[in-house]
Amino acid sequence: MIALVLTISVLSLIFAGFLARQVMGKDTGTAAMRDISDAIREGAEAFLSRQNSTIGALAVLLAVVIFILYAFVRPPNASDPVPPMMLAFWTTLSFVLGAICSTVAGYVGMWVSIRSNIRTASAARSSLNEALRIALRGGAVSGLFVVAMSLLGVGGLYTLLHALGHDPQKIPFTIVVYGFGASFVALFAQLGVGIYTKAADVGADLVGKVEAGIPEDDPRNPAVIADLVGDNVGDCAGRGADLFESTAAENIGAMILGVGLYQYFGISGILFPLVARAFGLIASIIGVLLVKAREDEDPMHALNRGYMWTAVLAAIGFAGGTFWLLNPPGYPDAWWHFAACGVIGIVTSIAFVYITQYYTEYRYRPVKSIAAASVTGPATNIIAGFAVALECTALPTFTISAAIIASYKLGASSGLAHSGLFGTAVATMGMLGTAAYILAMDTFGPITDNAGGIIEMSHQPEDIRKRTDRLDAVGNTTKALTKGYAIGSAALAAFLLFSAYLDEVAALGSPLAAVDISKPEVFVGGLFGAMLVFWFSALAISAVTKAAVSVIQEVRRQFQADPGILKGTSRPDYGRAVDIVTVGALKAMVAPGLLAVGMPIAVGLVFKVLFHVGAETVASFLMVGTIAGILMATLLNNGGGAWDNAKKFIETGEYGGKGSPTHKAAVVGDTVGDPFKDTAGPSLHVLIKLLSTVTLVLAPLFV
Amino acid sequence: MIALVLTISVLSLIFAGFLARQVMGKDTGTAAMRDISDAIREGAEAFLSRQNSTIGALAVLLAVVIFILYAFVRPPNASDPVPPMMLAFWTTLSFVLGAICSTVAGYVGMWVSIRSNIRTASAARSSLNEALRIALRGGAVSGLFVVAMSLLGVGGLYTLLHALGHDPQKIPFTIVVYGFGASFVALFAQLGVGIYTKAADVGADLVGKVEAGIPEDDPRNPAVIADLVGDNVGDCAGRGADLFESTAAENIGAMILGVGLYQYFGISGILFPLVARAFGLIASIIGVLLVKAREDEDPMHALNRGYMWTAVLAAIGFAGGTFWLLNPPGYPDAWWHFAACGVIGIVTSIAFVYITQYYTEYRYRPVKSIAAASVTGPATNIIAGFAVALECTALPTFTISAAIIASYKLGASSGLAHSGLFGTAVATMGMLGTAAYILAMDTFGPITDNAGGIIEMSHQPEDIRKRTDRLDAVGNTTKALTKGYAIGSAALAAFLLFSAYLDEVAALGSPLAAVDISKPEVFVGGLFGAMLVFWFSALAISAVTKAAVSVIQEVRRQFQADPGILKGTSRPDYGRAVDIVTVGALKAMVAPGLLAVGMPIAVGLVFKVLFHVGAETVASFLMVGTIAGILMATLLNNGGGAWDNAKKFIETGEYGGKGSPTHKAAVVGDTVGDPFKDTAGPSLHVLIKLLSTVTLVLAPLFV
Repeated sequence: MIALVLTISVLSLIFAGFLARQVMGKDTGTAAMRDISDAIREGAEAFLSRQNSTIGALAVLLAVVIFILYAFVRPPNASDPVPPMMLAFWTTLSFVLGAICSTVAGYVGMWVSIRSNIRTASAARSSLNEALRIALRGGAVSGLFVVAMSLLGVGGLYTLLHALGHDPQKIPFTIVVYGFGASFVALFAQLGVGIYTKAADVGADLVGKVEAGIPEDDPRNPAVIADLVGDNVGDCAGRGADLFESTAAENIGAMILGVGLYQYFGISGILFPLVARAFGLIASIIGVLLVKAREDEDPMHALNRGYMWTAVLAAIGFAGGTFWLLNPPGYPDAWWHFAACGVIGIVTSIAFVYITQYYTEYRYRPVKSIAAASVTGPATNIIAGFAVALECTALPTFTISAAIIASYKLGASSGLAHSGLFGTAVATMGMLGTAAYILAMDTFGPITDNAGGIIEMSHQPEDIRKRTDRLDAVGNTTKALTKGYAIGSAALAAFLLFSAYLDEVAALGSPLAAVDISKPEVFVGGLFGAMLVFWFSALAISAVTKAAVSVIQEVRRQFQADPGILKGTSRPDYGRAVDIVTVGALKAMVAPGLLAVGMPIAVGLVFKVLFHVGAETVASFLMVGTIAGILMATLLNNGGGAWDNAKKFIETGEYGGKGSPTHKAAVVGDTVGDPFKDTAGPSLHVLIKLLSTVTLVLAPLFV
Repeated sequence: MIALVLTISVLSLIFAGFLARQVMGKDTGTAAMRDISDAIREGAEAFLSRQNSTIGALAVLLAVVIFILYAFVRPPNASDPVPPMMLAFWTTLSFVLGAICSTVAGYVGMWVSIRSNIRTASAARSSLNEALRIALRGGAVSGLFVVAMSLLGVGGLYTLLHALGHDPQKIPFTIVVYGFGASFVALFAQLGVGIYTKAADVGADLVGKVEAGIPEDDPRNPAVIADLVGDNVGDCAGRGADLFESTAAENIGAMILGVGLYQYFGISGILFPLVARAFGLIASIIGVLLVKAREDEDPMHALNRGYMWTAVLAAIGFAGGTFWLLNPPGYPDAWWHFAACGVIGIVTSIAFVYITQYYTEYRYRPVKSIAAASVTGPATNIIAGFAVALECTALPTFTISAAIIASYKLGASSGLAHSGLFGTAVATMGMLGTAAYILAMDTFGPITDNAGGIIEMSHQPEDIRKRTDRLDAVGNTTKALTKGYAIGSAALAAFLLFSAYLDEVAALGSPLAAVDISKPEVFVGGLFGAMLVFWFSALAISAVTKAAVSVIQEVRRQFQADPGILKGTSRPDYGRAVDIVTVGALKAMVAPGLLAVGMPIAVGLVFKVLFHVGAETVASFLMVGTIAGILMATLLNNGGGAWDNAKKFIETGEYGGKGSPTHKAAVVGDTVGDPFKDTAGPSLHVLIKLLSTVTLVLAPLFV
C-alpha cells in the first residue's frame, strides 16, 4: 500500500515536471513582453525570499518550543517503546519538514505561474485553445506538485518512523506536527501575500485610476508591476500553501481516526486516506489532460467538463479503494457505506462550486441586486453587497451540515463500532479527492490575469486583448470557486480534527466526557474563539490599509519627482514600489499571525491555571471559533467576489456602463471587497485549520 | 416583599406621571414649530397603530399555538396541583399580557417623546440647562414607566398565581411566557421601527442631499417628516420595547434560578430579583432629579454625573437587598458574595459605557482612523470602518467573559450548593439596576434630535440652532451607549436564560447531562445558530434597502409632479411619504421576524424527529447563536456609530470640513452604518433574548 502511494506520488511529480517542461518550451513572445514578465518574476522572487526568511525565523523559534514541550513537559507514556527524547526529536523534525514543504509548495506555485504567464500571453496571439491549455497546464504543475508532495511527505514520514520501530498506531499522532508546520507557514504565507497583493492593488488603483486618471495596468503607474506581482504571490503562493496544508492536515486527521478502527482494518484503515488521495491524483491528471476548448466556446465550459471527469474518476477510484481496504471480513456492508461517504464528499464539493457561482456570478440575482443598488451611489452598493455577503452563509451551512450528519450516520450504520466519525473523515477525503484539479484551476487565474496584464502593457492589438480578457474573466470565476471549495473542505475537515484533538487529550490520560458549553468557562472559551475570528479579520483588513498607504505615498513621490513618468517619457522605478509593498506587507502580517497562534495557547493556559478546565475550554474555543471562521470566511470571500462581478456586470454596458456614476459606485464596492476576498477571507481558511493543529500539537500544555 | 415591590412600582408610575405633567406644562413654542411637531406626532401615531395591529395578529396566532402546546402536548406533571387546562390558560394569559405590556412600553416611549421634542425646542430658545432637563425628564418618563411596568407585570402575575394556589416554586416557569410575549412583540417592533427609521433616513438623504442638493432636514424634502417620525419610533418605541423585554425576561430568568436555591432562601430568593430592580428604580429617579448642567459645560458631563449617582445608589441598595434577603442563617458570607456579584454587574455596565464611547467618539483613535481613511475616498472609509467594527468586538468579549466567570466563581464560593449560576444572575440584576436611567438617556436622544429638526425647519436663529446641535451631539452618544449597555446585559443575561432552559428540559423529565458540541448533531445545531444571526442580519439590512427605494421613488414623483416644492412655494405631501414608508417597513419586517421565531422551532423539531437529540441541539443552537449574536450586534452597532461620528468629526472642520471630497466619502460610510446601527444591530439584541425565551417556552416540543 505504502509503496503504491509513494510510487503514485513520485510519478505525479515526474508528470508535473513533464508538464512544466512542455509549458516552458513554449514561445515567450516579443522582447517588450519579456521585459514586463521579467520585472514581475524578479519582484515575486524577491518578495517570496524575504517573506520566507521572516517566516523561517518564527518557525525556528516555534520548533524549539515544540521540542522542549515534547521532551520535558509531556508526560511520558510508559507503554511507548520510543523514549521521550527521540519522540521529541521526530516530532520536531516533522514540524520542520511540514514547514519546509509548505514553503516549497508556495514557491513552486509561484515559480510556474510567473513563467507560464508570458507563454500564455504569447499563445493568445494565435489561439484561445492554446492559451487556455498552457495556462491550465501551468496551473496543473502547481496543483499536482502540491498534492503529490503532501502525500510524499506524510507517506514518507510514516514509512520512516515505521521502519524505526514506532508503533503504527502512534505514528499519526507524531506526524500530526507535520500538519502543524504546514499550517503555521501557510498562515503567515497567506497573510503576507494577501496583504501584499491587496495593498499593491488598492494602492495602485487609488493613486492611478482615481488621482492621476490613468487606466488600470497602465505602464506609467509605478505600482503596476507590484500589482501584477501581487496577483502571482497572492493566488499561487497563497493558495498553494493553503491547499498543501489542507491536504496534509486532513490526511493526518483521517489517519488518526483510522487508528480508532484498527481492530477492523489493521493498518489499511490508517493508510486508506493516502491511497484515496493517490487515486484522486490520477483522476486529476486525466481531467487536466482532457481539457480542450473550441475558439467560439466559453472557456469555463471546457474547465467544467474537465472537472466533471475528474469527479467521476475520483468517485470510481474511491469506491475501488474502499472495497480493497475498508472491507473487513464479516462486515459485507461496510465498504459501500464508506464509498457512499466519499461520494457525499465529492457531491459536497460540486455543491460548493455551484453555490459560489450563484453568489458571485452576474448571471444570478445576488450580484444583479448589487449592480442595481449602485445606481443610487456607493452607499447603497455597499449596503446591498454586505446584505448579499451575510446571506450567502446560509446555503453553505445547510450543505456542510447535511454532509457532516449524513456521512456520520452512514459511517455509524456500517456495522462497525465507533465508525461514525470515520465516515465523516472519508467524506472529507472524497471532497479533497479533486484537490489537484481545483488547484490547477486556481493557479490558472493569476496566470491568465498576468497574461492579460502583459498584453495590455506591451500594447498588443485589440482582438488579442479581447481573447485574454475572456480567459481573465474565467480566471476570476475559478479563483472564487477555489475559495468556496477550500472553505467547504476546511469545514468538513474541522470535524475530524476536533475528534483527533479529543483523542489526543484522551491519550494524555484525561479524556473529556463531553465538551459542555453550558459550563461558564467552556462557554467563555467558545465566545473567545468566535471573537478571535472577528479580531483576526480586523487586523488582516487594516494591515492592507496600512501597507496601501505606503504604496500611495511612494507613487505620489515618483510622480512629483519626475513629471516625465506621467507623460510616458521616463520609466518609473517599479522596483522601489515592489520593495515598499514587500516591507509593508511583511511588517503587517506579524500581528494577526501571532494573535492566531498565541490566543488559543493563552486561553488554554489561563483556563488551565485558573480553573483547571484548559482542555475542555480549548475544545470549545476551537469548535465555536471554527463555526465563526466558516461563516466569516464565506461572508468575506463571496461578498468580495460579488462586489467585483457587480462592477464587471456594469462594465458590460448595464446601468450606463464604464465611466458612469453607477460604475464609479461599483468600483467603490470592488475596492472594499478586495481585502475581504483576497486577504482576510483566505487567511481565515488557514486560521481554521491552524486552530485545529495548534491545539492538537500543544494539547500537553492544556491537560 | 411583594407588597414593597408593587408599591415601589406604582409610586414610580405615579412619579413618571408627575414628570410627564411637568414636561407637558412647558411652553410649546411658535405656531410654525407646533405645525411641524404635529406632523411628526400624527405620522408616528399612525405608524405605531398600524404596526401594532400587524404584530397583534401574529401574536394571537402564536397564543393559540401556545395554548394547544401546554394543554395537549406537554406531558402533565402529576405532582402539580394545577390541572393542565388551567396551566395552559395561565400560560397563554401570561404570553398575552407580556405582549400587551411590551406594546404599551413602546407606545409610551413614543408618546412622551413626540410631545417633549417641541417643548425642548422651545426651551432651547432661552436656556441650555432648561432644554437638557426637559429632554431628560421626558426620557425619564419613558424609562421609569417601562421598568416599573415590567416589575408590576411580573410581580402582579406572581401575586395572582400565588393567591390562586400555584406552587411558588413553579410560578416562575409559568410566567416565563410573559417574557416570551414581550420578546416576541419587541422583535417585530424593533424590526419594524428599525426598518422604518432607516428607510426614511436613507431615502430622504439620498434623494434630498445627493439628487436634489438640498440640506438635511430641509422642509422642501417630502420625506423629511417621515425621517423625523423615524427617529421617534426607532429610538423610543424600539428601545422601549427592547429594554422592557430585557428586564422582564431577565427578572423571570433570575427567579427561576432563585427556585434552585429554595432550600436556603425560601421565597426570598425567588423575589430578590424584583426587590433589587425596585431599588434600582429609586436610584434612577434620584439620579434623574440630580442632573443639572451649566450653560458653558458639555451636557454629556451632566448626564454622566447623574449616571454615576445612580450607579452608586443602586450598588448601596443592592448590598442592602442581599443582606436582607440572601442571608440564610449559618452562611454568614453568602450575602456579601452576592452583593459583590451585583457590583460586578454595575461595573460591567460602566465598562460597556466607556468601551462604547472609545469606539464611537471622535476623540479616540478608532473614529479618527476612519476619518483619516476618508481622505482617499469612500472605499478606504468603508474598509477602515469595517476593520474598526470587527475589532471593537474584542474588549466587550473580555469584559463579559470576566463578568460571567467572576460572578459565577463568587456565587459558587458563597458556601451554598449550586449557587454559581445564581451569582451570574445577581450580576445581571446589578447590570440592569440602572436600566431606567439608561433608558431615560436613550429617549433623550430622539427628543433632542427632533428638537433640532423642529428648530431647523422653523428657521430659528443660528445661536439657538447651535444649542440644539450640542444637545443633539450628546443624544447621539447616549443612543450609542444604550446600545452597548443593551447588548452587554443581553450577553450576561443569556447565560442565566440558558440554564433556565436546561432546568425546564430537566423538569420535563429528560435532563441533559451536558450540551456536548463534539457530537455532530449538536455541532451542526451551533452552526445553524450562528448562521441564523448572519442570515437574519442580511434580511434586516436588505429590508431597509427595499423600503428606502419606495421612499426615493415617491419623493422623485412629488418633485416632478409639482416643481413648486423645490422652489419652496408649495408644501410637499408629507403624509403620503409617511404612509409609503409605513407600508414598506411593515411588509419588510415579516420575513426576518418569522425566520427568527421559526428557525429554532424547525431545528428542534427536525433534530428531534430524525435523530432524537432535539433538546440538546436546540441548546447548542441557542448558545452558539447567542455568541454570534453578541459579536455581530457589537460589530453593527459600534461600526455604525463610528462611521457616523467620523463624518461628524470631519464636519468640525478636519480634513477639509463639510462639503469637501473627504466629507462626501464619510457620508457614504455614515449611510452604510445607518441600517447597521439602527436596524440590524438593535434587532439582534432582541433576537438573542427571543431565542432564549422561544426555546424555553417551546421546550416541550423538543424533548
